[in-house]
Amino acid sequence: MRSRSSASLFVAGAAAGHLPGHNINHFAHTGTAGEASEPLTVARSIADIRARLEERLEKGGTAGLVPTMGFFHAGHLSLMRAAQGECPLVVVSIFVNPIQFGAGDDFNTYPRDLDRDLKLAAAAGADIVFAPTDTELYPAGFDTMVAPGKIAEGLCAAARPGHFQGVATVVAKLFNIIRPGAAFFGQKDAQQAAVIRRMVVDLNYNVRIRVCPTVREPDGLAMSSRNTYLSEAERSQAPVLYEALLEAKAAVSAGQRSTAALKRQMKRKIAGRYLAELEYVKIVDPNTLEPVAQINKNVLAAVAARFGRARLIDNMILSPGGDNA
Amino acid sequence: MRSRSSASLFVAGAAAGHLPGHNINHFAHTGTAGEASEPLTVARSIADIRARLEERLEKGGTAGLVPTMGFFHAGHLSLMRAAQGECPLVVVSIFVNPIQFGAGDDFNTYPRDLDRDLKLAAAAGADIVFAPTDTELYPAGFDTMVAPGKIAEGLCAAARPGHFQGVATVVAKLFNIIRPGAAFFGQKDAQQAAVIRRMVVDLNYNVRIRVCPTVREPDGLAMSSRNTYLSEAERSQAPVLYEALLEAKAAVSAGQRSTAALKRQMKRKIAGRYLAELEYVKIVDPNTLEPVAQINKNVLAAVAARFGRARLIDNMILSPGGDNA
Repeated sequence: MRSRSSASLFVAGAAAGHLPGHNINHFAHTGTAGEASEPLTVARSIADIRARLEERLEKGGTAGLVPTMGFFHAGHLSLMRAAQGECPLVVVSIFVNPIQFGAGDDFNTYPRDLDRDLKLAAAAGADIVFAPTDTELYPAGFDTMVAPGKIAEGLCAAARPGHFQGVATVVAKLFNIIRPGAAFFGQKDAQQAAVIRRMVVDLNYNVRIRVCPTVREPDGLAMSSRNTYLSEAERSQAPVLYEALLEAKAAVSAGQRSTAALKRQMKRKIAGRYLAELEYVKIVDPNTLEPVAQINKNVLAAVAARFGRARLIDNMILSPGGDNA
Repeated sequence: MRSRSSASLFVAGAAAGHLPGHNINHFAHTGTAGEASEPLTVARSIADIRARLEERLEKGGTAGLVPTMGFFHAGHLSLMRAAQGECPLVVVSIFVNPIQFGAGDDFNTYPRDLDRDLKLAAAAGADIVFAPTDTELYPAGFDTMVAPGKIAEGLCAAARPGHFQGVATVVAKLFNIIRPGAAFFGQKDAQQAAVIRRMVVDLNYNVRIRVCPTVREPDGLAMSSRNTYLSEAERSQAPVLYEALLEAKAAVSAGQRSTAALKRQMKRKIAGRYLAELEYVKIVDPNTLEPVAQINKNVLAAVAARFGRARLIDNMILSPGGDNA
């Protein structure tokens, strides 16, 4: 783990004019006194991020990548800290990826606040933020996709056709641009993590995929940038997804092995909150995401529901061997 | 350009037992006397090729990659020599890629001769041959593809559905394994080169794509490993593809600008050889592969025909400004 005495923001490259001036020294995390400090660099172009990596990595050294859509919450920051603990250089990408949004999705309204994100990233130990424009990643003529297979078909695929192809494609692009040694994803997006793991194996990316625990609000609601869409009433009911998962976990601990029974119980629980429009409750193999009928090894319970204009997802590993399995 | 006083074969890694003993010093190309020689290394596994590259590349140094399906002819060797002239280390991959063959295709009968290929590669200046098994590149569960867009739809796509997806996928895998600075392809496979160029731009591979001229037999037939399928009679008629392209080039030089007229002329020419079963004659934009009606800039004339069990392709740039444009 590196530590630094201070961090300051340096906007590199010709695109610096896109960003208003930043001074975030007072947000910098503190390290061992007397150590040299490196500024947080913001790269807006592919050429720029490549040049910064070339400058700052030793032979054979690789960065840790935290791919994000920005509007950071504690979940994102936990990924940055995990990267900092494992990698000599931490790159955080901030890019609201248009090709992973469908026609009815919230691409235009997805929350964005780069200034705030840069301060939070610096404080969480990021070394370089890569924040490209849409046309930098998708210039005219773009026409090649990474197509995940069966793993991208269940769960969220029905509500979000093409979503995981868009995710796999942008992550492949980021891997090719940044060539990280490790990349950090949140367990909340379990299907995304499974799609990326499969892609890394299938396309031979030399990247360790780290999936970090879901970070939750005090009442259990999984952190999500989309929680900002919730009205006060919706927000008060949204923790039911977590509560239903917790009840399923308790039922498995008490001996329940039938996923049909568990799903019935979870649906009943969620139906008790009138603002929840349930999309699915599924219990699947954590790696292949294939449905499971009887629980005799760890399974993934996953749930999706709409609360107003927010589509929320959550999941939990259910273990027949108890909490520590 | 490097030169070496001799080359000898070294089979690295645990899979060395797959290969019978080789001693190809007498096939080695000769360089400046007194220079240190490096043996030709054969890597059979992904871990092995990565370790060899790590050993033999300096910081920031990259290999030149020549992706092949083996059974070398002078076209392959010209790619290796081009790579040797440009790159500090030349990696030649030899892999008959199952996912780019369709159900009726010649995957099982495609000619293979690794011993002969290793000798030829050493003599042509290759440093490392990467010759993985099918299960090394496609272990059980493989399920992620690179899907090219419109550029993979015309020309050979009708006869070979899925072919270019298979090509793009294996080339993406090789790029991720070898991380070359440049990769070398033959102009004979013009659509393949266009698909790869598009993929490199779209997925941000940091690889220069070099497309080298088609190498021909003395009578003009484009070199192809599939020429071995031709009977004597088929072989004697196969140069008609080149002759038809040459006539089209001459017609353009003489002022013909209508691609409809050019295609009629080429079809008539090919129909004059009774063993030729024409598949297509097309005149397209060399980059997008979109059909062109009137020639007012360089176009690509491309032709495909079957001669017995051999499906042969050929192409030529037709320039309204003359041979040098």
